[in-house]
Amino acid sequence: MRMSPASLPRRALAEFTGTAALVAVIVGSGIRADALSQDIGVRLLANALASAIGLGLLIALIGPLSGAHFNPVVTLSEWWSGRPRRGGRDALAYLAAQLAGAVAGALLAEAMFGRAPGAALATEQRAEPHLLLGEAVATAGLVLVVQGLRRVGRPSLAPVAVAGYIGAAIWFTSSGSFANPAATVGRAFSDSFTGIAPGSVPAFAAAQLTGMLLGMGLAGVLYGTERAAAEPNAADSRRTV
Amino acid sequence: MRMSPASLPRRALAEFTGTAALVAVIVGSGIRADALSQDIGVRLLANALASAIGLGLLIALIGPLSGAHFNPVVTLSEWWSGRPRRGGRDALAYLAAQLAGAVAGALLAEAMFGRAPGAALATEQRAEPHLLLGEAVATAGLVLVVQGLRRVGRPSLAPVAVAGYIGAAIWFTSSGSFANPAATVGRAFSDSFTGIAPGSVPAFAAAQLTGMLLGMGLAGVLYGTERAAAEPNAADSRRTV
Amino acid sequence: MRMSPASLPRRALAEFTGTAALVAVIVGSGIRADALSQDIGVRLLANALASAIGLGLLIALIGPLSGAHFNPVVTLSEWWSGRPRRGGRDALAYLAAQLAGAVAGALLAEAMFGRAPGAALATEQRAEPHLLLGEAVATAGLVLVVQGLRRVGRPSLAPVAVAGYIGAAIWFTSSGSFANPAATVGRAFSDSFTGIAPGSVPAFAAAQLTGMLLGMGLAGVLYGTERAAAEPNAADSRRTV
Amino acid sequence: MRMSPASLPRRALAEFTGTAALVAVIVGSGIRADALSQDIGVRLLANALASAIGLGLLIALIGPLSGAHFNPVVTLSEWWSGRPRRGGRDALAYLAAQLAGAVAGALLAEAMFGRAPGAALATEQRAEPHLLLGEAVATAGLVLVVQGLRRVGRPSLAPVAVAGYIGAAIWFTSSGSFANPAATVGRAFSDSFTGIAPGSVPAFAAAQLTGMLLGMGLAGVLYGTERAAAEPNAADSRRTV
Repeated sequence: MRMSPASLPRRALAEFTGTAALVAVIVGSGIRADALSQDIGVRLLANALASAIGLGLLIALIGPLSGAHFNPVVTLSEWWSGRPRRGGRDALAYLAAQLAGAVAGALLAEAMFGRAPGAALATEQRAEPHLLLGEAVATAGLVLVVQGLRRVGRPSLAPVAVAGYIGAAIWFTSSGSFANPAATVGRAFSDSFTGIAPGSVPAFAAAQLTGMLLGMGLAGVLYGTERAAAEPNAADSRRTV
Repeated sequence: MRMSPASLPRRALAEFTGTAALVAVIVGSGIRADALSQDIGVRLLANALASAIGLGLLIALIGPLSGAHFNPVVTLSEWWSGRPRRGGRDALAYLAAQLAGAVAGALLAEAMFGRAPGAALATEQRAEPHLLLGEAVATAGLVLVVQGLRRVGRPSLAPVAVAGYIGAAIWFTSSGSFANPAATVGRAFSDSFTGIAPGSVPAFAAAQLTGMLLGMGLAGVLYGTERAAAEPNAADSRRTV
Repeated sequence: MRMSPASLPRRALAEFTGTAALVAVIVGSGIRADALSQDIGVRLLANALASAIGLGLLIALIGPLSGAHFNPVVTLSEWWSGRPRRGGRDALAYLAAQLAGAVAGALLAEAMFGRAPGAALATEQRAEPHLLLGEAVATAGLVLVVQGLRRVGRPSLAPVAVAGYIGAAIWFTSSGSFANPAATVGRAFSDSFTGIAPGSVPAFAAAQLTGMLLGMGLAGVLYGTERAAAEPNAADSRRTV
Repeated sequence: MRMSPASLPRRALAEFTGTAALVAVIVGSGIRADALSQDIGVRLLANALASAIGLGLLIALIGPLSGAHFNPVVTLSEWWSGRPRRGGRDALAYLAAQLAGAVAGALLAEAMFGRAPGAALATEQRAEPHLLLGEAVATAGLVLVVQGLRRVGRPSLAPVAVAGYIGAAIWFTSSGSFANPAATVGRAFSDSFTGIAPGSVPAFAAAQLTGMLLGMGLAGVLYGTERAAAEPNAADSRRTV
């Protein structure tokens, strides 16, 4: 079903809701796994599975409303590519909604687990050089998946493919694959398994933006310039997942 | 294949069978996981995977017969939305079948694992405030998934999406995501990994109904009023999964 | 692609190969998991995942050749229902191929793991009453899934649905869900994690056949008599997965 | 979307990139799992899940560019079968790209985890006879899956089926199912969980080539000679996944 284009406030609300739900899933499953398992590997398995499934569902449910970005990297790379063909005002509204949603989601997770929301910021330092390399790789891969699906004409696979990518990248990168500046900010508000100390956030965001550019470049090299491959039925197709 | 509409007794039998099988899967896999693993995280991974797959299969197999509710929250929210366009008699028959099925399923699981069915009620107290918040969130999300799939025109994804949702929500909520008053009652009849003390059942059911209302409200805010988006081919589509 | 009907010898060879591969996957992954993990729950998770995926792939690859039964319960229930419309000679050839394949697969697994094939029969006694109840439930569910998929017009889902069912049933039944007399015989030839003592095989096979009848009866009650629902395009559809 | 045929250099670049990403996923997730879990079974579960998902995504994204071989066994067996109908020059370019990519991917994984890339070759000896049997079985199965999907007219399932196969084969074979001479060479460059000592590489490659021949023979026996079953719409279909 192609839904009629939603107004910007409704789309921003969809981005807020989706990002909040995503971060609540990531942080909540992390807290629960941390409490239940003695083995860090088991904790991360549970956290990765829940996060991947949650992300996939949210893309399927909210994609037709706002495109289901939930991530400034996706919004910026789509805006950079001229998709959807809207101005910077839309992009700014998306970024604001994503940031607010990410913080709200982290606080909701804290409340669900009986912790005082906002009482403690995260203390886990993560800004080591090799972790930043991992984070750049994770984000480059995410951008390559999102753009590649469109370039091979399979944007409808986004819910499964993006979910699978994040579930795998949590394991194959050294950084745990945040790959999302908004979620990174949100995760600074929970001192738990998936938290990140506020002091590490700027470096992570910089690595993510670097990875975004790498991913866009790699997509260009592999698939050629977008204009050459553009076809009417492929244009803007992610919004009609 | 659109099956010819089944009679109410046949549909109620389908709800009884499906709910019994669902609760037998949840309780049975919980007992087995509890016996086999030393790590609570591993137990919950196995229990979540088996429960999610079982639920997805049952929706695929029984959806064409009765709509595959297996859950008073689904029946009530569908009845509230005027779907399927039937009176309260159908809803009452569904609720009775679900409750009876849930208890039967729990007793079957007990018997399969060599425990005297009905000999002991569950002793796990679960009515803490933050768990009730978790349960409301879990149920709101379930309703949002069910209604959202219809609103975005993808009801055929219900087996995979609802299964995935429950598998993830078992991890990201603090309560373990019962999200089903009938299954909650059934789980009171097994003093095991997935049990719930009878004294906690009313509070859980209240949290679930609250979550149902939250989920319906959130769906309305995100997707607009149902009437506006209604299309002939989307109406009542879940029954023809 | 609808393949031209294969000759009986070719179909029997397909059943032999598929059953051998299935049992090699079950027994092999059990031996490996047993060697690698300290936790029985983790072992069964790995064994269940590998077995489910292997079964699903084999159904997808061999379904178009022989129907991908790999299991006397499936062959007998299909023969009983008059599907495919062939005589008892075909069914007997299938049963013989399945039994021989199951033993060959167990011996291949033993050889792959550096154990002398056939040197030791299994020693794990499994014929307790509650395990036999579990095995009957497991087999009834399998038959219900196979027949239900056809009755709701979704036989093409068999690879995913049957695989998912077995993966879940390994957890929610007390018996580990052999649900297959041929595989049960094969597993008697490996004294390992998934083995079964020869003395327990007859009771397991009896429980499986009982479960088959229960499953056929339950399918009849839920979906009505097959004749009433038969449609041309649903007939014999499993062979053209 | 059927993409216009890419030039050989672009296809070789796609093979390089895909093989590098695949080996980075395998080696990276192995290093991370090794660091996080106390239980070897949990480590292998995480490593198998990440590797399978990564492979499936890469086949979906790069299949339309180069066929997504990432593996000399696939390139050779396709070339042997006359698919795609190109000369040996293409096959040689693919093999070179795969080998270079595999080494690059291993070094990237090492760097992501703060280890000096190339500082240490793997030390894990794996050339025992029963492991070589396991590796031959693993590779035969992979070839059977790839060729079987085409023979039953389902090449579009390759991303899910090949991914699932590798995820399962990591468990059901004794060797861990490298099943890829290029990845085997790459894994010699990382002294970690998924490494293989250089001295074991030749025996593994020989076992893999033997398995390739076994798989091609088995596919011929099961499905008949390719010529007999060839249909226009099935020809060369994997490149248009």
